[in-house]
Amino acid sequence: MPSFQTVRGMRDLLGEEAKAFTGIISKARETAQLYGYKEVITPVVESFELLSAKSGEEIRQRMFIFKDLGERQVALRPEFTASIARLATTTLKNDPKPLRLFSAGSVYRYDEPQKGRYREFYQSNFELMGSSRPEADAEIVLLTDSFMKSLGLRGYAFKIGHIGVVRGILSQENVDEKTQNAILQRMDKKEYDEAFKLAPTEHCRNMLEGLLQLKSDDCFETVKKIKTYVANYEKANVAAENLGAILKLAVESGCPIRDVEPAFARGLEYYTGMIFEIYIPELDIALGGGGRYDRLIELFGGEATPAVGCAHGIDRIELALQTQKATWRTELRKLVLVLAVSDALKVEALKIAQQLRQSGVAVEFEVMGRKMGKALEDGDKRKVDYAIIVGERELKEGAVMVRNLAKREQTIVPIRELAEKFNC
Amino acid sequence: MPSFQTVRGMRDLLGEEAKAFTGIISKARETAQLYGYKEVITPVVESFELLSAKSGEEIRQRMFIFKDLGERQVALRPEFTASIARLATTTLKNDPKPLRLFSAGSVYRYDEPQKGRYREFYQSNFELMGSSRPEADAEIVLLTDSFMKSLGLRGYAFKIGHIGVVRGILSQENVDEKTQNAILQRMDKKEYDEAFKLAPTEHCRNMLEGLLQLKSDDCFETVKKIKTYVANYEKANVAAENLGAILKLAVESGCPIRDVEPAFARGLEYYTGMIFEIYIPELDIALGGGGRYDRLIELFGGEATPAVGCAHGIDRIELALQTQKATWRTELRKLVLVLAVSDALKVEALKIAQQLRQSGVAVEFEVMGRKMGKALEDGDKRKVDYAIIVGERELKEGAVMVRNLAKREQTIVPIRELAEKFNC
Repeated sequence: MPSFQTVRGMRDLLGEEAKAFTGIISKARETAQLYGYKEVITPVVESFELLSAKSGEEIRQRMFIFKDLGERQVALRPEFTASIARLATTTLKNDPKPLRLFSAGSVYRYDEPQKGRYREFYQSNFELMGSSRPEADAEIVLLTDSFMKSLGLRGYAFKIGHIGVVRGILSQENVDEKTQNAILQRMDKKEYDEAFKLAPTEHCRNMLEGLLQLKSDDCFETVKKIKTYVANYEKANVAAENLGAILKLAVESGCPIRDVEPAFARGLEYYTGMIFEIYIPELDIALGGGGRYDRLIELFGGEATPAVGCAHGIDRIELALQTQKATWRTELRKLVLVLAVSDALKVEALKIAQQLRQSGVAVEFEVMGRKMGKALEDGDKRKVDYAIIVGERELKEGAVMVRNLAKREQTIVPIRELAEKFNC
Repeated sequence: MPSFQTVRGMRDLLGEEAKAFTGIISKARETAQLYGYKEVITPVVESFELLSAKSGEEIRQRMFIFKDLGERQVALRPEFTASIARLATTTLKNDPKPLRLFSAGSVYRYDEPQKGRYREFYQSNFELMGSSRPEADAEIVLLTDSFMKSLGLRGYAFKIGHIGVVRGILSQENVDEKTQNAILQRMDKKEYDEAFKLAPTEHCRNMLEGLLQLKSDDCFETVKKIKTYVANYEKANVAAENLGAILKLAVESGCPIRDVEPAFARGLEYYTGMIFEIYIPELDIALGGGGRYDRLIELFGGEATPAVGCAHGIDRIELALQTQKATWRTELRKLVLVLAVSDALKVEALKIAQQLRQSGVAVEFEVMGRKMGKALEDGDKRKVDYAIIVGERELKEGAVMVRNLAKREQTIVPIRELAEKFNC
């Protein structure tokens, strides 16, 4: 029989990697609590109609789409936002605003697999709905900062901009929305020449090109330059003003932002305001990002509701931590192996194991019936810290032998002192 | 535009329910750590070939099966065991035994939806591979006990048996395996008359019927009776002996087992030894269960490896806790609303919010620009504990106004004492 394998593009997460994934998701959940975001758990399987309402053609073609046994056209979610928008326009429609919602879990995209890119991957997602004020934008940026900081990620940097700057220029230059989107898409891919070619006039092209030159080392300085540059473009000016207000709130309350990108255009067409991404110097992929999409809820049939949100790639964050050789704070908890010297003492040994577990000590119980030497040798390989050897002589005195496997030392310890010994 | 809905059989988990689900899964993970089980995260999408290798026809017909864009026949996992067996026969093949593996997440079955039954539901799963000894069986039962206890579930009871008792009788009565399976399936559904009709002889029928009468209030007493009853059936006798050894280990180390079911036959055909389920008096569905399946790994193309495992239904456990009106230990953490009396003080207010979050206080920041009265009223509705009102006068003294929303009392508190006040 040939051995079974994972489906192409799927993978198992084992050992330290699994610990890191669950650990990163816990930190995201912790961040959600600290910022007052309520967790919602939405289905992996949603209607294709819902999932395609907002996604661009590109994502639509990369979805896992199928019919269920009831002939419903369904798909595996490629991201969380559509499900959250569904909730906001139905079940949570009458909840007082703002709505702060958090989700975490697996999402699915049929991409060509490559190193670090799988067809099943993990995201945490935050949405803040109901406020159009800069405090809301700043909050999404700040919680991303808190999340990254809580993971011990070093040297991460924000890249921030405002879609309204480029759109404001293009609108006033009478560029229709479809062409605007085409230009923005190319700018997002840094295909600037291709993008600028689509500008209808030389003046418009020059305006866009000039934007790229405004970047400086100081985010407030860059915003000031943008404002001056677009002084004659009313909407672009308002956008720059708004970006400045968001930055003031975020930076002054501790968020380490330096890079304002004057011509930043983030993938998805539906952004309407501030947009941002987060990077570390060692990797050229964004660990997460988001922005304002005030038309999102309308797109899903709801009442016009300002909204800002972000998603973080758990896989990429794990890769970033690995790249930085961050020692993931795994269990500080000791691992103890409990074994009896003879079958007659198994019950006594198991009782001790259960007592220790009740006091919060992690215990492996010897279930292979191996001789002591073999069991200890194997425990050593698996990085067990201590072995508790239950023997008749010590047991009569209410004690057991405790062996430190690394130091190869053993001492006799009264049973009632065991829990204290390992709970440190 | 019609509003979007969840796909039939799928649902959103919100509010307290979402908290309970993530809380129960955390407790399962905690149990895994205490017993030395390593977490593995396997894909939701697996090959249909893998998922159908072990499942009976019944589950196979209820899977979400589809072709991916590469024309691969895939399905959404209906349970975890197949994925774990795949790992054990491939990636983890050469790992030292025993293998202790834990998983938790969503599984999918196309059942007719009804109250409390969805097509996407959640399980925790524990597998112990490599040991045929009663210590291994006892461990799976004990960890289920620890898990239930850690949740504060009251009055739960184990139902335990051994598939080898009935099989031992039937084998010695020359009943072929197919008929054995048919009999066991009916016994599992408590269709005893239907089951016994399939027995080839009256003697065989009487033997099975007699088994049902052996139950007593004491598990050791029941095992003793079974042993006497099957004294002439060698394999059945060995099975009863084995069950006795498992019970001795489990009960003497604190597991509250009373009900031994002499004719217990748990659904799946692949069980080969001890089988168990767990119930509460208020519900007639099992919250979890498992048993020994020594041929599992062979079924997936691996070397013969003894194995025992169990799965717990997170949905059902949540329902059980709800039924018992268990107060799920949610955050003891206080929720604090921070707001500025004027726009000019927003940055100062946000700085205070960030400091508090860094000290572990959960903070909602006012992002709606509402007047104070409106914001406080809304905070009260959403069960915010305290509001911190940042005003010019107090700020000059390095202080803020803190309002207890439930008591409608307010006091002035120095900013440096805030974290301490809310971290209790």
